[in-house]
Amino acid sequence: MLADTPEPPYYAVLFSSIRAEGDDGYGEMAARMDALTRVQPGFLGLEHARSPGPDGIGITICYWTDLDSIAAWKRNVDHMAAQDAGYAKWYDGFRLRVAKVERANAWDR
Amino acid sequence: MLADTPEPPYYAVLFSSIRAEGDDGYGEMAARMDALTRVQPGFLGLEHARSPGPDGIGITICYWTDLDSIAAWKRNVDHMAAQDAGYAKWYDGFRLRVAKVERANAWDR
Repeated sequence: MLADTPEPPYYAVLFSSIRAEGDDGYGEMAARMDALTRVQPGFLGLEHARSPGPDGIGITICYWTDLDSIAAWKRNVDHMAAQDAGYAKWYDGFRLRVAKVERANAWDR
Repeated sequence: MLADTPEPPYYAVLFSSIRAEGDDGYGEMAARMDALTRVQPGFLGLEHARSPGPDGIGITICYWTDLDSIAAWKRNVDHMAAQDAGYAKWYDGFRLRVAKVERANAWDR
């Protein structure tokens, strides 16, 4: 569930969202995009959480080796279709940020 | 719930965690740390989600103007006490990453 990533530097795409009401194919798409993301070149890891309830926000952080890998995944045709549907019906709002990870710490009991 | 941050560049602290069983003062501490974080110099915004269930991970992303503000918050005495208790009893594992946000997009319906 927590991603074991290599030593920095690497990149993170931070996607925080508020869902619109109703599923409308969202669950199926989310599972498909999760699986598809994990086989892209440059993929390093993924962490996801969504708080329950209508006000709950979801956060997905995806880790990548470099900006070119992020750009390629953004242009993936299946992913582009999901992005279009996201605007059309699945989300009430989102924030998308691309960041360079400079330092990292991992701890497990 | 979604953070409205200024134009990049700025910094993000990504904290992903698995909770240990039981509350044991965690909820109270989390609310206190949330309120305290928001009044720190250099604070820009905070987003948090935690999936329900024993396997649910939590993700908190905190946005800051610069690395000095992050370092100062890390050294805050109340925050240090919370960090110690986190190791001792609240978490089974976590990942902490510091990243420089280079690009950002916001969309609201």
